Amino acid sequence: MAGGPSTPALAIAVCEAGGLGFVAAGYKRADAFREEIAAVRAGTSAPFGVNLFVPAPEPADPDGLRDYVRRLAPEAERQGAELGEPRFENDDWEAKLEVMYEARPAVASFTFGCPDASVVNRLHGVGIAVWVTITNVTEALIAREAGADGLVVQGTEAGGHRGGFVDDGSDEGGIGLLALLRTVADATPLRLIATGGIADGAALAAVLCAGASAAQVGTALMLAPEAGTAEAQRVLLAERRPTRVTRAFTGRPARGIVNRFMAEHGEAAPVAYPEIHHVTSAMRAAARRRGDADAFNLWAGQAHELVEARPAGEIVRAMAAEARAVLERVSAVLRDPDTSAGRG
Amino acid sequence: MAGGPSTPALAIAVCEAGGLGFVAAGYKRADAFREEIAAVRAGTSAPFGVNLFVPAPEPADPDGLRDYVRRLAPEAERQGAELGEPRFENDDWEAKLEVMYEARPAVASFTFGCPDASVVNRLHGVGIAVWVTITNVTEALIAREAGADGLVVQGTEAGGHRGGFVDDGSDEGGIGLLALLRTVADATPLRLIATGGIADGAALAAVLCAGASAAQVGTALMLAPEAGTAEAQRVLLAERRPTRVTRAFTGRPARGIVNRFMAEHGEAAPVAYPEIHHVTSAMRAAARRRGDADAFNLWAGQAHELVEARPAGEIVRAMAAEARAVLERVSAVLRDPDTSAGRG
Repeated sequence: MAGGPSTPALAIAVCEAGGLGFVAAGYKRADAFREEIAAVRAGTSAPFGVNLFVPAPEPADPDGLRDYVRRLAPEAERQGAELGEPRFENDDWEAKLEVMYEARPAVASFTFGCPDASVVNRLHGVGIAVWVTITNVTEALIAREAGADGLVVQGTEAGGHRGGFVDDGSDEGGIGLLALLRTVADATPLRLIATGGIADGAALAAVLCAGASAAQVGTALMLAPEAGTAEAQRVLLAERRPTRVTRAFTGRPARGIVNRFMAEHGEAAPVAYPEIHHVTSAMRAAARRRGDADAFNLWAGQAHELVEARPAGEIVRAMAAEARAVLERVSAVLRDPDTSAGRG
Repeated sequence: MAGGPSTPALAIAVCEAGGLGFVAAGYKRADAFREEIAAVRAGTSAPFGVNLFVPAPEPADPDGLRDYVRRLAPEAERQGAELGEPRFENDDWEAKLEVMYEARPAVASFTFGCPDASVVNRLHGVGIAVWVTITNVTEALIAREAGADGLVVQGTEAGGHRGGFVDDGSDEGGIGLLALLRTVADATPLRLIATGGIADGAALAAVLCAGASAAQVGTALMLAPEAGTAEAQRVLLAERRPTRVTRAFTGRPARGIVNRFMAEHGEAAPVAYPEIHHVTSAMRAAARRRGDADAFNLWAGQAHELVEARPAGEIVRAMAAEARAVLERVSAVLRDPDTSAGRG
């Protein structure tokens, strides 16, 4: 949950409730990343993880990028905002790796790519477990080959950016979490962490049955007071509203609640991350400040309407307790010989 | 599984193994539907269900339809096949309803629409439970209003046609099964039957935890000897291959393994069901006969590579047994106080 919702307070609250809190490195300078790690460490003695964006392999096609920037110019003018430079950069990758080697969180998870085996080995050398976010079996096999310890298995339900890095020929619709967990479990022996649309304890119980050893939640924490979620987004998250996957805001597929900006620009948006992210960043921040929910990214998973506004620690504890209760109840039903699984 | 894979032998085998077998009415004349029901009744004393296609409300836009038929003409010529007439018809709807009122299966499930309350009432009057296939919460609420007893909750993972009938503004990517089950369970008190990418007992256990009282499987049975699956499709179903949702074959979104026909015509295909179904039907049947897997629809769910070639009864019994074992195992892990759900 880079880019706002993720805060040290949120990570601390999750850790203190028995979860594994995460520090989001994405979009930050390495210095700020180091400071957030220190803040979390000061607030909890429990283990925590960090998440990094793996840099894109090459800059975007300049023609598509230029056309889209031109298209957004009137939008920016109407909003009274400036478009940013379409910069290609690597999110301070090397410096952040150094911060990690030094700070030694329990887990380093990666998004948008798979780190080289050399990076994985160095992380292992200082006792950091490596998780790679994947969206299909091809990526799972690449991550296994690179030495990953765990796979963050991201279903199409997930809010925010798709974390994958190889187009395997499926459509952009993506693979549903349940089918993805089962096919990845069949293809690799790695530890699986399920993510995408997990908003309550019943869904947590479901992914544990489907082969995950844990669930990673994002949207489920976005209404917590500890989260840095914009107010206008909080209102819409709690409502029943459709989501779509779009490149309109950042040049990379991400799921959010449908709004005007997405509807007007989604079709035209090129594959151009992080360039488009930088182009729209200031405009989106301004829209967030003035509460214009039609003009910034409303990242949300497909179960967002179930999300509750309560302290993060309560959310984590309630999910765990509900998962246990659901598992006991369903096990008991199936144990009853008068009940058949086929007929339910 | 209308259109080939579904057979009376398959329904009988599923029923005898403790599942609820289904007779597919779609694409058949009412007489043939009546005969299949009689064949299933002769083969098992267990309850079974039937599935009907609800007719489309209006014919397709003629311009889009004409363009697509023109586009397919060289394809047909190359294959030495004939294009069919782009007929708009209602799949013998009234006659099939009469067959149902008379034959009284345990369950009537509906796809592509929600029957009127008058139809639901008449089915209830003769003791038939009514299930409606839904792909979003909007459809779930419509089905509840019409008096449905159960909802077949179809996730984006599902092979074959999307069974929904209302575009709620989400993208064609659709909603993942887990998120859909949880949001529908939150919105209605109806019995939920989960479907989409459920290929083994772990996935069955997962959907039971997520609020379903049963799972409906399709692809999972397609390699059984009792299924009428084409040989060329059997080979590809067992391999790891991407699937996509396409209107190329029938004018209605359906998920299948990516092949040449889908890749070449998918983008151009209009919303035009059942017209395009009739246009391509003979051409696809011919491709099926000559084993040309690039020229007919390879319907398959997103977990198709997990499907096993064994008798249908064994598949059903193994799924139920595995679901029980998974639930016992995961419950036991969560009962152990040293294990936290948050950390797995």
